[in-house]
Amino acid sequence: MTQHEGPMRVAVLGAGGLGKAAARIIGAKRQMRLAAICDSKGIVASPQGLKAALIAGISGDLVGGYRAAEGGSDGGGVAVATEVDARHCDDPVGAMLQLADGLDGIVVALPNLPNEFIPNIIKRCVTAASGLVFVDVLKRTRAVELMLQLDPIVKASRSVVLTGCGATPGTLAAAAVLAAQSFIEVEKVDIWWGVGIANWEAYRATIREDIAHLPGYSVERAAAMTDAEIDELLERTNGLLELRHMEHADDVLLQRVGVVDSPEQVEVGGVMDTRHPKKPVSTTMTLTGITIDGKRSSHRFVLGDETTMAANVIGPALGYLKRGMWLKAHGLFGVFGCTEFLPMVVR
Amino acid sequence: MTQHEGPMRVAVLGAGGLGKAAARIIGAKRQMRLAAICDSKGIVASPQGLKAALIAGISGDLVGGYRAAEGGSDGGGVAVATEVDARHCDDPVGAMLQLADGLDGIVVALPNLPNEFIPNIIKRCVTAASGLVFVDVLKRTRAVELMLQLDPIVKASRSVVLTGCGATPGTLAAAAVLAAQSFIEVEKVDIWWGVGIANWEAYRATIREDIAHLPGYSVERAAAMTDAEIDELLERTNGLLELRHMEHADDVLLQRVGVVDSPEQVEVGGVMDTRHPKKPVSTTMTLTGITIDGKRSSHRFVLGDETTMAANVIGPALGYLKRGMWLKAHGLFGVFGCTEFLPMVVR
Repeated sequence: MTQHEGPMRVAVLGAGGLGKAAARIIGAKRQMRLAAICDSKGIVASPQGLKAALIAGISGDLVGGYRAAEGGSDGGGVAVATEVDARHCDDPVGAMLQLADGLDGIVVALPNLPNEFIPNIIKRCVTAASGLVFVDVLKRTRAVELMLQLDPIVKASRSVVLTGCGATPGTLAAAAVLAAQSFIEVEKVDIWWGVGIANWEAYRATIREDIAHLPGYSVERAAAMTDAEIDELLERTNGLLELRHMEHADDVLLQRVGVVDSPEQVEVGGVMDTRHPKKPVSTTMTLTGITIDGKRSSHRFVLGDETTMAANVIGPALGYLKRGMWLKAHGLFGVFGCTEFLPMVVR
Repeated sequence: MTQHEGPMRVAVLGAGGLGKAAARIIGAKRQMRLAAICDSKGIVASPQGLKAALIAGISGDLVGGYRAAEGGSDGGGVAVATEVDARHCDDPVGAMLQLADGLDGIVVALPNLPNEFIPNIIKRCVTAASGLVFVDVLKRTRAVELMLQLDPIVKASRSVVLTGCGATPGTLAAAAVLAAQSFIEVEKVDIWWGVGIANWEAYRATIREDIAHLPGYSVERAAAMTDAEIDELLERTNGLLELRHMEHADDVLLQRVGVVDSPEQVEVGGVMDTRHPKKPVSTTMTLTGITIDGKRSSHRFVLGDETTMAANVIGPALGYLKRGMWLKAHGLFGVFGCTEFLPMVVR
C-alpha cells in the first residue's frame, strides 16, 4: 500500500441494492472516490474514479450494464470511458486485489450466505494484500464471530477490519454503548427496526437473509429458495415480515465491550414491509438499566422514519471505514466492532 | 507515572454535587478506585482507596466532614483511617499533584467560573506531572476552546485530556455524531434538556453556571451573586430556569469533527426545575438532515426521565476517562473532545 493524499480510494464488493447505494453515497462525498466495484461476474474500475451515479443506476449485470450506459452516453463520456476497466471475469475479487495498490478501503456489500462467505473473502484479501481497510455490514452473530477470529491474520497483514458496521449492528449498537454510560447495571438492550421497501426485487439478498430468521427457516433453506418461493411466502404475509429473537451480532458486539454480561440481554427484531416504502414501525434502540440511585430507566435512540435502510446502513459503514483509516494511520491493526469506536464523519 | 495493574486509580478535583456523585459512582465500579478527592480547603487521599460512600455523604467542608465521619465510625474504621491522609491545606491541587505517581486519572468536577479556571488548572497539572489522564465536564464553548488550545503542552507531557465529556456536551454530542452518519447534509442539531433537582443548594455551582446563560446575565455577574440573590431570582420564576441559545460547546465539538459547518447549526437549551426532582421535559438530542434521497428527517436520542443529571454527567465522564487510558496506552496524547471517540464501559 502506497501512502496516498487526497480522497480515500474506495472499492465496493457487491453491486446489489446495498452495493449500488454505497456507490451512490460515495459519489456524494468529496472525501471519497469510487475506484472500483464488482459483482459476481465482473469488475468496473478506474484509478480516476468512476461515475458513481451511473454505477448506481445499473440494473442486472454490472459490466454489461456499465458498457451499455457508457455506450449510450454522449461524446463527453468517451474520454472517461477509455480510462475505465470494465470486464467480465471468473474471479472479480482476484481482479480487485490486483488493484490493491490503488485502493485505501473496501466496502463489503455482498450477501452473506453461508455465514463463512464474507469472512473467507476477507481472509483471502488480507492474505493477498496488506494495509487495506475493510468495513462490512454483517448482521448475524455467527458471521461476526468468524470475522473477529480473523484478528491475528488481519494484524499480521497490517490491515484493519471494522465489522458489523451498518444500522443493526452498527449505529444502534454504538448508541447502546453511549446509553449504557448513565447506568450502574444494564438490564436489556432492545432493538426494534422497521424497514419499508417498495419492491423486494431491489434487495433480494437482504430479504433472503431476513427470511432465514423466520421460525422454521435457516440460512441454508433461505439460500435455496427460488424467487417464486419468496414471492409466495410474501403473498401469504401480505408483504410483511415480522422477525423476533433475531440472531443479530449486536449481542456479541455489546458483550465484547461490557455493555451486557450475556448475549441474552440483547433482543433484536423488527418488521419489514416489502411492498411499501413507508416504515411499518420506527427503528428504535432502547437500553434499560438501573442508575446509581437504584432507579430503572431507559434511554432511546430513534431513527427518522424518512431515512431508508440504505442510508442507515451505508452511511455508518462509510463513517466506520474512515475510522478504520484513522486506526491504520495510528498503527492500530486488527478486527474491531462497531461498539469500539465512533464512526467518523465523511464529508 | 509508573505502569499500574488493577483498578484505575482515580482522583476527583472538586467535592460539590458533581464531585460527590463522582465519588459515589466510582465506588460502584470494580475497575476504578477513588484514590483522592479535594475541595478548595483540603484533600483526602489513600493509596488503598477511599470509602466512596462515606465521601459522597459528606456535606460542607470535605476534610472536616471526613474526620467527623471517620471519628464517628466504629472500631473497624480505625485501621483504614490511619492509612488515609486527610488534611486542610492552602493548595489542594498542589497536594494532589504530589500524589501523581499513585494516580492514573483525574476527574475535574470543579465549578468553572471564570472560563479559564479549569483550563489553567489542567495547564498547571500537565506541566507538573506527566502521563496522567484527565476528563472534564465543561459546558461552555469558550472554556472548551481554551482546553483544546492546550493540546501542544498536553502532548508534550504525554498526557491525555478528554474535554466536554458530560451529558451536553458529552453523550448527546456523541449521539449526534452517530445520527449524522445517515445524512448527506446535516441541517441542525437541537439539544433540549430537562433537569429536576429537589433543592438547588446541592448543586450551587451548576445552577450558578446556568444562570450565567440567562438574558442579561454573564459569567461574571452570576459568579458575583449571593445565595440570597439566587434564591430571589428563583422565587420570581417559581423555581424554573428556562434557557435558550446557550453557549454550549456542543457547537465547536460537532464542528470540529465535521458534523456541522458552523456553530450556529447547533442549538442548546433546556429547562431546570430547582424545586422538584422530576424532569420538566425529557432531555433529547434531535439531529435533522437531508438523506441521499433528498428527504428531510430527524434522528433522536432521548434520555430516560428517571436518570439524574449526576448519572448522565458523571457516568459518561468515567467512560471517557477509561477511553483516555486507552488512548494513552496506545501512545495517543493530547486534548480530545467527546465527539471524537466512544466512551468505554466501566464495570
